[in-house]
Amino acid sequence: MENKLQELKIRLQEVNDLNMVGALLGWDQSTYMPPGGAPARGRQAATIGRLAHEKFTDPAIGKLLDALRPYQDSLPFDNDDASLIRVTQRNYDRATKVPADLIAELSAHQAAAYQAWTQARPNNDFAAVQPILEKTIEYSRQVANCFPGYDHIADPLINFADEGMKAKSIRAVFADLRQELVPLVQAITSQELADDSCVHQTFDSDAQLAFGKTIIGHYGYDFERGRQDMTHHPFMTKFSLGDVRITTRVKEDDLTEALFSTLHEAGHAMYEQGINMAYEGSPLAGGTSSGVHESQSRLWENLVGRSRGFWTHYYPQLQAAFPQQLGDVSLDTFYRAINKVSRSLIRTDADEVTYNLHVMIRFDLELQLLEGTLAVKDLPEAWHGRYQSDLSIQAPDNKDGVLQDVHWFAGIVGGAFQGYTLGNIMSSLFFDQAVQAHPSIPTDIEKGEFGVLHGWLKENVYQHGSKFTANELIERVTGGPLTIEPYIRYLRTKFGALYKL
Amino acid sequence: MENKLQELKIRLQEVNDLNMVGALLGWDQSTYMPPGGAPARGRQAATIGRLAHEKFTDPAIGKLLDALRPYQDSLPFDNDDASLIRVTQRNYDRATKVPADLIAELSAHQAAAYQAWTQARPNNDFAAVQPILEKTIEYSRQVANCFPGYDHIADPLINFADEGMKAKSIRAVFADLRQELVPLVQAITSQELADDSCVHQTFDSDAQLAFGKTIIGHYGYDFERGRQDMTHHPFMTKFSLGDVRITTRVKEDDLTEALFSTLHEAGHAMYEQGINMAYEGSPLAGGTSSGVHESQSRLWENLVGRSRGFWTHYYPQLQAAFPQQLGDVSLDTFYRAINKVSRSLIRTDADEVTYNLHVMIRFDLELQLLEGTLAVKDLPEAWHGRYQSDLSIQAPDNKDGVLQDVHWFAGIVGGAFQGYTLGNIMSSLFFDQAVQAHPSIPTDIEKGEFGVLHGWLKENVYQHGSKFTANELIERVTGGPLTIEPYIRYLRTKFGALYKL
Repeated sequence: MENKLQELKIRLQEVNDLNMVGALLGWDQSTYMPPGGAPARGRQAATIGRLAHEKFTDPAIGKLLDALRPYQDSLPFDNDDASLIRVTQRNYDRATKVPADLIAELSAHQAAAYQAWTQARPNNDFAAVQPILEKTIEYSRQVANCFPGYDHIADPLINFADEGMKAKSIRAVFADLRQELVPLVQAITSQELADDSCVHQTFDSDAQLAFGKTIIGHYGYDFERGRQDMTHHPFMTKFSLGDVRITTRVKEDDLTEALFSTLHEAGHAMYEQGINMAYEGSPLAGGTSSGVHESQSRLWENLVGRSRGFWTHYYPQLQAAFPQQLGDVSLDTFYRAINKVSRSLIRTDADEVTYNLHVMIRFDLELQLLEGTLAVKDLPEAWHGRYQSDLSIQAPDNKDGVLQDVHWFAGIVGGAFQGYTLGNIMSSLFFDQAVQAHPSIPTDIEKGEFGVLHGWLKENVYQHGSKFTANELIERVTGGPLTIEPYIRYLRTKFGALYKL
Repeated sequence: MENKLQELKIRLQEVNDLNMVGALLGWDQSTYMPPGGAPARGRQAATIGRLAHEKFTDPAIGKLLDALRPYQDSLPFDNDDASLIRVTQRNYDRATKVPADLIAELSAHQAAAYQAWTQARPNNDFAAVQPILEKTIEYSRQVANCFPGYDHIADPLINFADEGMKAKSIRAVFADLRQELVPLVQAITSQELADDSCVHQTFDSDAQLAFGKTIIGHYGYDFERGRQDMTHHPFMTKFSLGDVRITTRVKEDDLTEALFSTLHEAGHAMYEQGINMAYEGSPLAGGTSSGVHESQSRLWENLVGRSRGFWTHYYPQLQAAFPQQLGDVSLDTFYRAINKVSRSLIRTDADEVTYNLHVMIRFDLELQLLEGTLAVKDLPEAWHGRYQSDLSIQAPDNKDGVLQDVHWFAGIVGGAFQGYTLGNIMSSLFFDQAVQAHPSIPTDIEKGEFGVLHGWLKENVYQHGSKFTANELIERVTGGPLTIEPYIRYLRTKFGALYKL
């Protein structure tokens, strides 16, 4: 048994090496690669991806897993070896059950779909992508049908990103959340818009970056095991547990861009940096789901980084960094500016309160598309209808409507959106538990001290990597299932105070 | 036949992808990787290296080569397909003839040897590495003996870097060169040392880098297909023919460090950037030998970049970049400073004239070590003896004697040094031919114009990649064998004028 486990670990290590190398190819492409490198880089990434897939789907791994089942069953559920075998089996099924032909066809389709979208969006031309999107939905259903026995056809697709979550339960949670959010947005946006002109002056790029780096250093992001570079879109990537990098972008006329994207990506990165080093090179060495991952980026970005207590400590430092721009701006004005709520068309620009409405619209629509209760040709109208009913706004076109997000045009339809809102919900769930365990945390934050919070998160969330699914983790941490209650309480308290509701 | 050739190309492409990915791992490690990334990076590089070796030594490739031999024989020698098959066969033999066990043993030994050397050098402790070096020589002989039929035991090892060259002929060429150089060095160093204090003031790093980049842009280094970053030791690396990068380092108190390393590495890079794009992804897509590669770095660094004509054009620009430091320094003084000749202990610091004496000492000694005509225990004394006879200097210790270079302690003994001096010899050989074809080149250089020279080199050297060996290339370009005549003429003319000989 010892030998078989060892052989499994060696094979998984090789797969992991290839995946991490693939990530480096992507990082370099986004950061430093000269234009002339593009054609070969695409091919190199495909070669590494193919080899990783070949090595992981090797029937030898299936046989090792079969042979190790009795050993797994003899161990407690949360034992490291048992968890490794369980999680590997899950990933193995996922990788082997979709036929190679379908994967190849889908890849080619996705490349063409993405290409078409890059043209169609600026041209506001939904008709150009409509037949492509119809085909994508057909492929998405085919992929889902490789995993029979589901309750809802989206369930297998949701599982890819948020293992164990189901369309039905997410729908129920989202419906509750929507019921709370729509009137909250209504109440806030019926008041005068917050004035955020103070963050739209001119701010030196280097000074902005330096300020963000200082803060995430205080948070506990380890620069000995990571670094920050500039990219067109910010992201976090990882080449090992000892090398977890983030990227950002700067806008000289928007102080919030680099700052909050830095705090956000650092949250993702601290999760990865906090994983038990003993899992290095195995499928356990990664965050467990898109929702839990997002919970950590949002926790450090919003619950900490947009809180009043945080800025009580840091605002004088920010004023010192930008005395001309902020010297005469009060903490109150700044705090309102960075927490401005408005009904906007674009998801990625949305504030904390309205953001989830954008996400839930997409989630609901993609379920209907997969079910066949909504036809692609009717999608733009359905989109506008939901923006009308949930946010009381109307996009002037499809460019800033149904064509705004890349997800449906670069991947499959289903499973890509729910994690954003699950993450917001979970951010409060975890933060709440941390504060219950350590009531000093809010006052720590007012002193720029984050060690107790970071320590609690490492102990209760980060160290486990992918050992537990999101639901298992929530159960372990809170003793109960996913609930929106702490998140709603957080929003009501924070925005209630800001907008005197 | 068409199918077999296609299959071979696909397999070679995959090997090439892996090798290029391995190069990126190394580049990242030297440039941007945080310290925490080191342990995993070593493993990832080993995995990629192993996979590349496995894929290339697959017996299927041997069978394809066998099947393609009649096709190769039916084609002209310089046909692209014939050359691909010929060069692949050579590399395949090289990769398959050394047993995997020996490679593994040698790798482990090399890692230990390198580790021991990093300790022994600062401690001036030759005794600590003596038994290790004895073992290295034993391994080097074993590797050589995997390729029976050689004239000299070093020939197979020389072949790895300079295919087709032999110990006997190199020895003869080097003996002739030495006979010219020793008295030349004597004559120069009996005069007063050049004053190079003008390049040892304080020079802003960014301004130094900007100046170097401007020049290599004029040379023809294509920044759309490359970039420059900072590393501890400068190097050139390649991830495809469209992505050929260089690195440098800056010393604020030595204007020559960044500048000439930039010109040097750009020479290597322009060679790679100039290879026929049709060879991309194949074994032809790389410079043909260490000697020819070095000829291009030295040509652009020395024959162009340390010439009087070049600085006639660029010195006013350099003065404008550093008016305080160089405003009152004459072109004459500067030109003498960057061409200062002195008898020094360290190869890597040596000037154009003495450099080859350092190299030839190492080459001669390693041949004797491999032959068994010199014992490792007698190496330090032999080293000091040769420095006495060739350069009339004596190192005070072994630290700056036989322990100064990493080569013998990180690789095998044999084949690593001759390329430096072959490169110097060939730099003049090629430059001479270019000037014969285009007599305007020297005056072009005085105007900062390099297009004709670069074009001739692309046409006659660069585009061919690895299609021809060094000797084949020299024969094609000059109609004769390797000769030191143009190089000696170059040194005599340049340094004769400088030192009024």
